[in-house]
Amino acid sequence: MLTIPGQRIAFTTDSYVVHPLFFPGGSIGDLAVCGTVNDLAMCGAQPLYLSAAMILEEGLPMEDLRRIAAAMRSAADQAGVSLVTGDTKVVDRGKGDGVFITTSGIGVIPPGVDIRPSRIRPGDAVLINGPIAQHGIAIMSVREGLSFATQIISDTAPLNSLVAAMLTICPEIHVLRDPTRGGVASTLNELTAQGGAGIELDESAIPIDEDVRGACEILGFDPLYVANEGKVIAIVPEPEADRVLQAMSAHPLGRRAARIGKVVDAHPGIVILRNRIGSTRIVDMLSGEQLPRIC
Amino acid sequence: MLTIPGQRIAFTTDSYVVHPLFFPGGSIGDLAVCGTVNDLAMCGAQPLYLSAAMILEEGLPMEDLRRIAAAMRSAADQAGVSLVTGDTKVVDRGKGDGVFITTSGIGVIPPGVDIRPSRIRPGDAVLINGPIAQHGIAIMSVREGLSFATQIISDTAPLNSLVAAMLTICPEIHVLRDPTRGGVASTLNELTAQGGAGIELDESAIPIDEDVRGACEILGFDPLYVANEGKVIAIVPEPEADRVLQAMSAHPLGRRAARIGKVVDAHPGIVILRNRIGSTRIVDMLSGEQLPRIC
Repeated sequence: MLTIPGQRIAFTTDSYVVHPLFFPGGSIGDLAVCGTVNDLAMCGAQPLYLSAAMILEEGLPMEDLRRIAAAMRSAADQAGVSLVTGDTKVVDRGKGDGVFITTSGIGVIPPGVDIRPSRIRPGDAVLINGPIAQHGIAIMSVREGLSFATQIISDTAPLNSLVAAMLTICPEIHVLRDPTRGGVASTLNELTAQGGAGIELDESAIPIDEDVRGACEILGFDPLYVANEGKVIAIVPEPEADRVLQAMSAHPLGRRAARIGKVVDAHPGIVILRNRIGSTRIVDMLSGEQLPRIC
Repeated sequence: MLTIPGQRIAFTTDSYVVHPLFFPGGSIGDLAVCGTVNDLAMCGAQPLYLSAAMILEEGLPMEDLRRIAAAMRSAADQAGVSLVTGDTKVVDRGKGDGVFITTSGIGVIPPGVDIRPSRIRPGDAVLINGPIAQHGIAIMSVREGLSFATQIISDTAPLNSLVAAMLTICPEIHVLRDPTRGGVASTLNELTAQGGAGIELDESAIPIDEDVRGACEILGFDPLYVANEGKVIAIVPEPEADRVLQAMSAHPLGRRAARIGKVVDAHPGIVILRNRIGSTRIVDMLSGEQLPRIC
């Protein structure tokens, strides 16, 4: 979050190196647009302009590049942002991997919005807009050649209109965060580390599809650590939680929104999970990456 | 060039894939900062904020990464910009090439500045701030293992303070352009294609170091097509040309500034070079790249 004369803006960048380039529910193209749109939205900013820089490996089929560019266009339209500038570099065969895309974005932060971890307070509610772990498992199932009874689809989506609806209902939202690399567990650990409070999650309240849960079991992943690309965690003052949850549920990207936990002062800096039979375990920060090149 | 509420801004992005990562006079780090600073300066914008996204190949020595990061810091300090956000991704060995860096930048365009090719008029003077072809030959000499009597050094430098000095003297500057990939020839061809006028260059006026000229002869390159990373071409109204040239010469990055040609209406869209004995040749757009991975 930055100030330029006359305006408060948000500015963000991310490189996308996802492998494979195409996966159920998306491609590196829409991922690169949605990821940067979402990073802006998580500051409470209205995303306006995106840049895209592509590093192409010699030998990439032109048809793949066209599909990726079309996916970027479509995601930008969906998010209501303009791709305004870009760059292309080509590297020799074996010096890249198909396409890497770096997107950067600029958004404007409306007056009154003040989203940062230090505003987290004990008693705050922890909300999420839908089922977890879809993106990571969609990628992994393609990479490992797994097939399930139903295909698992990435949740890649631009969250800015959902976030705008939430902020309209409750400008007082304390924190918004998209649980991408490292999943819900890593995101909440980062927040408790920065904010100083603890978080208690209610396992039975965390939305997850049965097929995703099954795939996690087969692959040996804890779904709390698996990447999402269309999820937002909101930490909101308890008195506002129900209204925010209603606003989320009324949005197409929040139909399965849920209250998954609360901020507590009992164990500062620590995230715990209370399971179905009432016992608890610490949800630690993962060291290293569970899935490389997930985004 | 964009508008956000209350402000006119410039926004740009470039991926840097230069090979090798370190070269005489610079590295991918300062190149990535200077290149983006210069792109903003060429719109007449005052660069404020930069992002940096790095794609690292597994196995890159940490010491190389530290040197690159230090070079970025140093270039940002020299340019007076802040590196405010970033990202890091790691790809497997053989799926990248050491480091790729994508920088994006935001600058503010002062009121009254209006720099665009359509403002070019017959009679305008074409100025440059110093000797050409240094960056490309510095890279090439390392790549080819050539050594010359004196080492040829890249001209990589942030041009924003030079440009600010020029715009202070003459806010009416019509066009600014940094002749990077494709060199002076490609840049001028792009401008004549967009602006509709022609350009006549005076070969004897174009500054070039003797060792660079010699290296170009050995390597078979036309220096007009070789990349620069610290040069600006300015197209200015003739009555202002001497004052702008003086302002350039008074700046450390413009000591060898020169008037190298003029805009003419005789051959719209075409760049010609008048040589020492008075004959002319057309300086065409190069098809393809003379030197891949130069920046």
